[in-house]
Amino acid sequence: MRDVAIVGAGQTPYGAHPRQSIKELFATAYDAMVESVDRAYDPDEVDAAHVGSLGVGGYQLGITGASVTSHIGLTGVPVQRVENACASGGFALLNAVQAVGSGVHDAVLAGGVEKMLDLSGDRSKYWLGVSGDTEYERLAGTTFAGVYAIIAQRYLAETDAEHEHLSKVAVKNHENGALNPKAQFQREVSLEKAAGAPEIADPLNLYDACPTTDGAACALVVPADEATRYTDDPVYVTGFGGGSDYLALHDRETIVSLPAVREAADAAYERAGVSPSDVDLAEVHDCFTIAELLAYEDLGFADSGEGWRLVDEGATDRDGDLPVNTSGGLKAKGHPLGATGVGQVVELFEQLRGEADERQADGDVALSHNVGGSGGAATVFVYEVAR
Amino acid sequence: MRDVAIVGAGQTPYGAHPRQSIKELFATAYDAMVESVDRAYDPDEVDAAHVGSLGVGGYQLGITGASVTSHIGLTGVPVQRVENACASGGFALLNAVQAVGSGVHDAVLAGGVEKMLDLSGDRSKYWLGVSGDTEYERLAGTTFAGVYAIIAQRYLAETDAEHEHLSKVAVKNHENGALNPKAQFQREVSLEKAAGAPEIADPLNLYDACPTTDGAACALVVPADEATRYTDDPVYVTGFGGGSDYLALHDRETIVSLPAVREAADAAYERAGVSPSDVDLAEVHDCFTIAELLAYEDLGFADSGEGWRLVDEGATDRDGDLPVNTSGGLKAKGHPLGATGVGQVVELFEQLRGEADERQADGDVALSHNVGGSGGAATVFVYEVAR
Repeated sequence: MRDVAIVGAGQTPYGAHPRQSIKELFATAYDAMVESVDRAYDPDEVDAAHVGSLGVGGYQLGITGASVTSHIGLTGVPVQRVENACASGGFALLNAVQAVGSGVHDAVLAGGVEKMLDLSGDRSKYWLGVSGDTEYERLAGTTFAGVYAIIAQRYLAETDAEHEHLSKVAVKNHENGALNPKAQFQREVSLEKAAGAPEIADPLNLYDACPTTDGAACALVVPADEATRYTDDPVYVTGFGGGSDYLALHDRETIVSLPAVREAADAAYERAGVSPSDVDLAEVHDCFTIAELLAYEDLGFADSGEGWRLVDEGATDRDGDLPVNTSGGLKAKGHPLGATGVGQVVELFEQLRGEADERQADGDVALSHNVGGSGGAATVFVYEVAR
Repeated sequence: MRDVAIVGAGQTPYGAHPRQSIKELFATAYDAMVESVDRAYDPDEVDAAHVGSLGVGGYQLGITGASVTSHIGLTGVPVQRVENACASGGFALLNAVQAVGSGVHDAVLAGGVEKMLDLSGDRSKYWLGVSGDTEYERLAGTTFAGVYAIIAQRYLAETDAEHEHLSKVAVKNHENGALNPKAQFQREVSLEKAAGAPEIADPLNLYDACPTTDGAACALVVPADEATRYTDDPVYVTGFGGGSDYLALHDRETIVSLPAVREAADAAYERAGVSPSDVDLAEVHDCFTIAELLAYEDLGFADSGEGWRLVDEGATDRDGDLPVNTSGGLKAKGHPLGATGVGQVVELFEQLRGEADERQADGDVALSHNVGGSGGAATVFVYEVAR
């Protein structure tokens, strides 16, 4: 497979967009992506597209891919919607990377879009519930927060972590979100407030959960040896991997680790030829604070049961050894399901190019981690400023 | 890109499966696929999967891919759901072909599944409607049959075709379906009955429309140079292509031709190095009889406006020069949306291997054609018995 690079990445502001349809949101993200490409290029060069969307809401429920790409005038090329719950965006990127890597395509758009705020609170919970297992979890009455609460209960029981460490994830990510003009929550939160928030599913409280978000993101994937035609500062995708698992927690050997993530990470590290200690910064899938701690462990940043120490010690703060979620993460930046995996790229694209302004962290090797359901599917990517 | 081959393909019977969930349907198709592989192989060789599903019905609405693949014990590999309306299966196959072709994966499962009969008639129409454009067609009250009726009106106005030629498509496909033990309708229909059926959307009548179907299909894609490890009779995928377009008819320059199909076909023919006249038999997307006539023209089997002559002259009969839809097509075999594009492969796999029993047609070069919506997306594949 030939090497590939990302030469443009952009997104909408994340938050509430009651006046924009998914088509308009997608077009806004596309325009931001085009804007991020340093040198003019012909939009007709784009010869395929993969669009991540879970499809919540009452709009175009089938054939969403061509629906949003035709709205930006992109027709006549293979376009498809990828749906892997909250990892839809990550898998759209995975397909784009492989489509260019295979030599079949030369410029592939990886995008994602979701409009969640069209739904009232109750229906929003329903749709999130379908990201988990339907037969044994959703239909038994378990909310999606409930699934992660079960994981958190077990994690707190098996490790020396306490709920405060979950809250510290929220505090850190809000600190970063406060500096991100595209974040849904651009405000800090005190540890006291985060720890004392109303409970939503014991032991998780309101500040352990990501918000409900509208938004879209796009990235342009091209062959590495064509990248400098678009920009002097391409970001190379040197590693990638995907994994899957049983959807229901009861089918898994452990619930305090996500095998799908470990498989995706193993593949990504091996392909990139890097180890977890080489990673300088990461965007991880903190749909709930507990998920960020699992990510530390499953990605090899910490030993099993020890992930909480990283946030406790400040290692994953913006000025720590391994900044995680400089964007604010799903927690503060927001989580427009299908867009999230591509939105992570936008942050790392800006970070690795030194364009992250106040959020700027040091580093040449970055990683993104996107999870579907409670671990039913996952993607991991390694990005580097040099091949 | 390296060459790829299909070494196994299987499906459920198409029809009503009220007692089987999508997981069970998928497993049934998977088992049939495994059964079709001539030599024993380790199921753990499968290292990725793409599952087409539009997701109608009230079951697992998110992360369907891992839901059905974990049910067959396939975990730990990248799995994703592909949704491109009725072309979901075709795009799942396209991804599988490219994943193996790129060298990233060595044995990829392309599957599709749909359960439509869980829905009552009205909801079924609703869900089919979302395969078309939502803003300008569905919300304006247009049914999906209505969209194809508009196309048919125009076709009958612009060409010398009459409604009888549409009915002849139904008669031919029912003749084939009558010989297919997996078909939903295993019975012939007279031209008189087909032509005189109750109207559903002028000029289309009941026999111009495919039925509502439950079913699943699976195919195993491997590198061409590994194929003989699985079977003495691999079917090589020598050509493939995808296309997309505006969803709404009013956005297109013409509605009696589907540009997405022409683009997909051009790419497939070019890659395979064959021309339309080299094709010996084909499975085309006859969701409505008019769609089969458009397919003849868009695939280059007939000049524009002349497709109806093929069915009129019997050229596409099972014993004609170019047998089309020997399976019975969507019309008689059935149309379980997400499974359809993969189910077409099952028929052609059997045909090219000489295993189609009473339906057997002659030929070494076959083509499949799968359309999403009324032409918003399309895939075309060329299959050959030799590379």
